[in-house]
Amino acid sequence: MALQFSQLVAQLGEGAVQHSLGGQPTRDPWLSGVAAIDAAAAGTLSFVENLSLASQVASTGASALILPLEPASLREQADERQLAWIATPQPRLLFAQAIAQFYQPFRPEPGIHPTAVIDASVQMGQDVYIGPHVVIQAGVTLGDRVCVHPNVVIYPQATIGDRTVLHANCVIHERSQIGTDCVIHSGAAIGSEGFGFVPTAQGWYKMEQSGYTVLEDGVEVGCNSAIDRPAVGVTRIGRDTKLDNLVHIAHGCTVGRACAMAAQVGLAGGVTVGDRVILAGQVGVANQVTLGTGAIASAQSGIHADVPPGAVVSGTPAMPNRLWLKTSALIKRLPELYQLYQTLKQVQRERS
Amino acid sequence: MALQFSQLVAQLGEGAVQHSLGGQPTRDPWLSGVAAIDAAAAGTLSFVENLSLASQVASTGASALILPLEPASLREQADERQLAWIATPQPRLLFAQAIAQFYQPFRPEPGIHPTAVIDASVQMGQDVYIGPHVVIQAGVTLGDRVCVHPNVVIYPQATIGDRTVLHANCVIHERSQIGTDCVIHSGAAIGSEGFGFVPTAQGWYKMEQSGYTVLEDGVEVGCNSAIDRPAVGVTRIGRDTKLDNLVHIAHGCTVGRACAMAAQVGLAGGVTVGDRVILAGQVGVANQVTLGTGAIASAQSGIHADVPPGAVVSGTPAMPNRLWLKTSALIKRLPELYQLYQTLKQVQRERS
Amino acid sequence: MALQFSQLVAQLGEGAVQHSLGGQPTRDPWLSGVAAIDAAAAGTLSFVENLSLASQVASTGASALILPLEPASLREQADERQLAWIATPQPRLLFAQAIAQFYQPFRPEPGIHPTAVIDASVQMGQDVYIGPHVVIQAGVTLGDRVCVHPNVVIYPQATIGDRTVLHANCVIHERSQIGTDCVIHSGAAIGSEGFGFVPTAQGWYKMEQSGYTVLEDGVEVGCNSAIDRPAVGVTRIGRDTKLDNLVHIAHGCTVGRACAMAAQVGLAGGVTVGDRVILAGQVGVANQVTLGTGAIASAQSGIHADVPPGAVVSGTPAMPNRLWLKTSALIKRLPELYQLYQTLKQVQRERS
Repeated sequence: MALQFSQLVAQLGEGAVQHSLGGQPTRDPWLSGVAAIDAAAAGTLSFVENLSLASQVASTGASALILPLEPASLREQADERQLAWIATPQPRLLFAQAIAQFYQPFRPEPGIHPTAVIDASVQMGQDVYIGPHVVIQAGVTLGDRVCVHPNVVIYPQATIGDRTVLHANCVIHERSQIGTDCVIHSGAAIGSEGFGFVPTAQGWYKMEQSGYTVLEDGVEVGCNSAIDRPAVGVTRIGRDTKLDNLVHIAHGCTVGRACAMAAQVGLAGGVTVGDRVILAGQVGVANQVTLGTGAIASAQSGIHADVPPGAVVSGTPAMPNRLWLKTSALIKRLPELYQLYQTLKQVQRERS
Repeated sequence: MALQFSQLVAQLGEGAVQHSLGGQPTRDPWLSGVAAIDAAAAGTLSFVENLSLASQVASTGASALILPLEPASLREQADERQLAWIATPQPRLLFAQAIAQFYQPFRPEPGIHPTAVIDASVQMGQDVYIGPHVVIQAGVTLGDRVCVHPNVVIYPQATIGDRTVLHANCVIHERSQIGTDCVIHSGAAIGSEGFGFVPTAQGWYKMEQSGYTVLEDGVEVGCNSAIDRPAVGVTRIGRDTKLDNLVHIAHGCTVGRACAMAAQVGLAGGVTVGDRVILAGQVGVANQVTLGTGAIASAQSGIHADVPPGAVVSGTPAMPNRLWLKTSALIKRLPELYQLYQTLKQVQRERS
Repeated sequence: MALQFSQLVAQLGEGAVQHSLGGQPTRDPWLSGVAAIDAAAAGTLSFVENLSLASQVASTGASALILPLEPASLREQADERQLAWIATPQPRLLFAQAIAQFYQPFRPEPGIHPTAVIDASVQMGQDVYIGPHVVIQAGVTLGDRVCVHPNVVIYPQATIGDRTVLHANCVIHERSQIGTDCVIHSGAAIGSEGFGFVPTAQGWYKMEQSGYTVLEDGVEVGCNSAIDRPAVGVTRIGRDTKLDNLVHIAHGCTVGRACAMAAQVGLAGGVTVGDRVILAGQVGVANQVTLGTGAIASAQSGIHADVPPGAVVSGTPAMPNRLWLKTSALIKRLPELYQLYQTLKQVQRERS
């Protein structure tokens, strides 16, 4: 699909606070796609978010650019090169909106493949897609326009909301409640059994996991992630929360709205996460810990104690990020400190 | 299924050292299920394990409670509210037993779905369930009452013991030997190829993985975990050992009995783990390390050296937990230490 | 398959710099397989790589051994026990080559199972194997002798090179380009959507991931790993690079040739990795970081800044390995340092 630059600007709406059609004579280039600035060919749109890529404006092959408002020199450079441009306080957001003008992800046409095995009791809405070799068991409900990619398995009594997409080979366990507009990526397991074993003299006694998992509307779960259900009650992921690949959410966690957890994060059992919490990659959170609204943990943090709302923490065990930055720098100077320590010990020894 | 409280007490047997039917006049409530204490409705049973939830006794909606023996005030509180209760030294265990009275996990009826593709040489016991789209290859043996959920793939020559459950989309690789009463959760890979590559001037030379993986009886493997087979010999997981989600066990590891490994633990090649070892989430263990019987590692520990039996270790590189608690606290005070260090340096400089 | 020792030596070629047929009278044993030295039975070949296992030469049940050149005493010991042996500077490589003489991994015969669902537009080369319940969507191209194990799903427009093996239940996403001689292990997801969300006042705005993932020739990807595609451009894994289980490669990473990443490594978005980089288990690399050619990171390193070519780093945040070894040792002595610190503080207080 091709789009003229001026059309694109019109569609992006108020996000574009200034724009130029590409110099004199007015060129208003035709655009056929989007590209990274250092790999862009003629006829593509690209973007500059921060200054690390700003030098690319001088050499990019793109025909049009989304630029930040500052520095103004970027616009001048683009003008010199007769590139069309849009300037905006949010280049990444506008670029995301532009991508959506050129690219729609693969969505199969509605229809039920004859190889799918669907229990007679399953209820489904309109325009559902169910791919080859999908298995949907008793009592499951699917909303309108749900898209179930091949080889997905849905255990009994699960519900899947309108427009939710289940990618290939993911597994939705019994009683899971998945809201509207969710995306479950390939291989993820939702509502699987929590890890509940009670130690006894005869070995581990298995605690059956009678609860269920709820994903509210707009949740995304990355490839091969797992969200367990609890022994009793609910594991809940709040509306608009996004989980990356290989994330583990244990039984009984309650995660708020609009959180983001990067890949390989793990929450132990019964963790409570407020709204808009951001956990970077490989963070671990211990049993029963509470993370306050808007808290942020940097990569690989190990969080053993509650984190107040809005706090930024780092390290294992996690501490305030500013303190961690200091201590991390000082750890590198421990050899110096230790040398002084030895000198002082020597002095003490000589005096005594 | 509903159960009167007195019946439940009778079934829980000796674990219940004291109980009350719920005040005068004797009420002996009917119970329809189990619930977390802060979410329990009338007609449910709940439990109090530790004091953090003890205050909930005053307000819970549950009709019956499993209580610890201490403090006695909990029983008094329950009496005041005319709640039925059981007191026991092991509330969690009794609660687990109570859950099993009310809830059985989904187990399909025996039978072989016509879409399953099963090699003619496969041998299977009685009352086996094989779900839709399962693939079982040559020479596989399944015991009695094995349950193979949809879309599972079993490579050639594997054996699966009686009553073992393979959840949807898991993969059992060639020659794996899985004991009785095991549970392999969704998406797990058992007996996959170890990561064996020998560096040469021409690049990596692949070492074929001719060994196999053994899971002894009663082992559980969490969702999307992977247990590799070795180049020669065996990767072995001992009887009654439980692995959580996203755990990695490399080629040639030998894990003892009744261990528990939380989510995202990784063992490198050839690790030896004694019996009853507990590894918390995201722990990593380096090549060829030995962990002694009963050792414990706290979350995110990085274990590069052998751990003696019974030791509790923490940190990266792992050290005794008590030392780690001290050093972790002191790391936060490094800025103070460093300030003093600078003062002392200054003093030295002035003197010289 | 059995092989006489002298035949084996002939086939291993120049790697074997010295050998003995097993004492007088010349025995030239028949070998039926390979085994670990401490578990080897008569009729098997084993190997000694380093001195930790050297004492096993005195007691191993193996009939033949691959030995290192040093110490010479190993050869004498083997001679005494009338064991056949080969001595080589690279015992592990020769052993890998020997395994390949006795063991070939399971590869199904070419053929397309009737339950596979293959779009009419799919192009495939000669001698392809496509297992039961595989789903291959529109526009996919498969090279010669590709092996697609059961329940694999290939989304539209992907290409799979000659001789590549896709293990059970892995998922290849749209537009992925997989080279020749690759192995994708069970449950891995290739070319899945990158984790791209732009924060707005209304919540996360999803950035569609219009790019694709390229695996060059000879790449291996471990079980349940995930390699995401980017919003624009390419995620690329260079020729001969090997990834272990549960590895996460985020959108837009560029990984060089002949790298090795152990299990549970995670690369955040846009990371650049040079050739022959080695990342041990559970390493994390932050957004946009560059790792130079030949760099090495030890287990659990957290890399937040660029690493120069050839550097060896450790710790979080990562530092030169030699410094990390020192600081790790000194962290354990922080209690001593702190005691001195308190003494000095006391002295200062008394003086003032």
